[in-house]
Amino acid sequence: METVATPAQWFSMRWQDGRLVILDQRRLPLEETYVALDSPGDVWRAIRDLMVRGAPAIGIVAAWGMVLAAGGDRASGEALLSRLEETARYLESARPTAVNLSWAVRRMLERARSLGPGAEPGAIEAALAAEAARIQEEDEAAGRAMGEHLLTLLEGEEPGILTHCNAGQLAASRYGTALAPIYVGVERGRRFRVFADETRPVLQGARLTAWELARLGVDTTLICDDMAATVLQQGQVDAVIVGADRVAANGDVANKIGTLGVALMAHHFGIPFYVAAPLSTIDFSLPDGRGIPIEQRPAEEVVAGLGRQIAPAGVKVYNPAFDVTPHELITAIVTEKGVAREPYAESLARQREA
Amino acid sequence: METVATPAQWFSMRWQDGRLVILDQRRLPLEETYVALDSPGDVWRAIRDLMVRGAPAIGIVAAWGMVLAAGGDRASGEALLSRLEETARYLESARPTAVNLSWAVRRMLERARSLGPGAEPGAIEAALAAEAARIQEEDEAAGRAMGEHLLTLLEGEEPGILTHCNAGQLAASRYGTALAPIYVGVERGRRFRVFADETRPVLQGARLTAWELARLGVDTTLICDDMAATVLQQGQVDAVIVGADRVAANGDVANKIGTLGVALMAHHFGIPFYVAAPLSTIDFSLPDGRGIPIEQRPAEEVVAGLGRQIAPAGVKVYNPAFDVTPHELITAIVTEKGVAREPYAESLARQREA
Repeated sequence: METVATPAQWFSMRWQDGRLVILDQRRLPLEETYVALDSPGDVWRAIRDLMVRGAPAIGIVAAWGMVLAAGGDRASGEALLSRLEETARYLESARPTAVNLSWAVRRMLERARSLGPGAEPGAIEAALAAEAARIQEEDEAAGRAMGEHLLTLLEGEEPGILTHCNAGQLAASRYGTALAPIYVGVERGRRFRVFADETRPVLQGARLTAWELARLGVDTTLICDDMAATVLQQGQVDAVIVGADRVAANGDVANKIGTLGVALMAHHFGIPFYVAAPLSTIDFSLPDGRGIPIEQRPAEEVVAGLGRQIAPAGVKVYNPAFDVTPHELITAIVTEKGVAREPYAESLARQREA
Repeated sequence: METVATPAQWFSMRWQDGRLVILDQRRLPLEETYVALDSPGDVWRAIRDLMVRGAPAIGIVAAWGMVLAAGGDRASGEALLSRLEETARYLESARPTAVNLSWAVRRMLERARSLGPGAEPGAIEAALAAEAARIQEEDEAAGRAMGEHLLTLLEGEEPGILTHCNAGQLAASRYGTALAPIYVGVERGRRFRVFADETRPVLQGARLTAWELARLGVDTTLICDDMAATVLQQGQVDAVIVGADRVAANGDVANKIGTLGVALMAHHFGIPFYVAAPLSTIDFSLPDGRGIPIEQRPAEEVVAGLGRQIAPAGVKVYNPAFDVTPHELITAIVTEKGVAREPYAESLARQREA
């Protein structure tokens, strides 16, 4: 893992000369530093340490991790397949909640297996590189499509949008999920007023959403998470839009911790609450949100993640990285296929088959 | 304003040898530093800079500020009265939202005037010192009474309590408001499980509530504000208890930013939401919460208050210090006189007259 030159136009991840270059999101917003990942171990650490985060992004990065696994020694196609199976399990272990991670590595594995038992290592590697590129392109297309669908829900001159965490380009390949309508809208000269929850403890809203929207020239106001209710109460917000890390078949949504609270507030004030999620984020194997594993992260993140210690030594901390918002609180789930509404068990299943 | 020795047993404020000694809350939880205030200017700065905060506490400290104003040059009783009027307005200007501040200085002013136009400066000073001591004692008694009343609402072996900001001893003279039942309960050997919202941006929950409850030996779990909904959803909390900075006659409550969100969450999950506030915090002159002035604080607090810069330079920030929770979301308002319930316009008025 080494630092590489900063490009003229920023990107979240790019395959470049046989290695995966990512923007190290831990250093934002103060430094824009890019790092080259050369092995599945590098990819695992980049995901685990939040150098890259966001469900679509970690899926894409993990797919490239499988390509890196295929590029090592080349004993035989069979040996490589068995190594790829190990790598898949290893990469999946980096973080438990976002389903895109296992979705992507499982898809890569299937692609490798589809070449048959006699395939040459070189052919497997080439097929995997093409598949990872396809996953990344599909994510870009899905982002664009979600942006178009969400734009149909955002009326008025300069709609107010509240978002939590970061579900923008930094969380994906190009348009993001929740921020996709803003990217697409800005291309057409539309204007928005965005309120970005800072999103404790890791501050993805303050560090990442505020950064990428400033790059895009969008009117963005940073608030602390506990100010969201006031902004909604004041009528400053026309829609809440968030991303998702995993959506159950019934529309229950696991997303960054704090999403549930925002959903409850929006529900109370009658403000639409939209979830933007590509179909790769929907886990049709889970009937509801109770089965979604919720990652617990270290106390450190809360107590000392901000530069200095903010609580007494030894304080007990509860630090779940995600929460589950029940489907009843969600106005619509927007995928690349369109706008799904209650009952989600049916509308999401229909989108999968469309 | 100078640093003085740290006492064996901590306190939030104490009149000592003609000066007011306060615990500098900005330095908690890492340093327990006491500072002596020698003039109304010192008191004004201590309130403005959050060295001391919490509605009852700033009322008490401002009352002592009036005593300090009376201790300067002693031209005549009349000249002193006119100086005290200036000092009252000056101290009131330190922070706008908590009504205890003006309540306390107005009460002090009235006491000074009650001695009549011919009163000697020395007599005025003595009367004011006695009145400030009385305000402080009354606050202690009110805290104890609120604690007793709140305890009647907390059943079970080891009730789970969620609180936002700090409404403990640090925010008052001795028992605090929202934390009063915990102080009183602990004296009787009762046990509690407390969840403390960290309370961005100034982190009164992480820095102050976690600190004082640790001193008291209470099982306390620190969470980020955006984790409160999850803790409530999980059924870990039997009651939410918060303090107040100003309560309107109809029961609308201005309190630390984030209180409204917690109230909405508790309402949704059917968990009682109690506000602890002495009668001095109730502003009967305001029919509802719309008239409560909400202090706006600098962007700095959000962006750079945690030790390092957390957002891009130049980002727009909205930083209201308080929000207003409408009375419909409040299960009960507990004062030193008892447990008031809807309709608050009547129940609070009855308590005032009781």
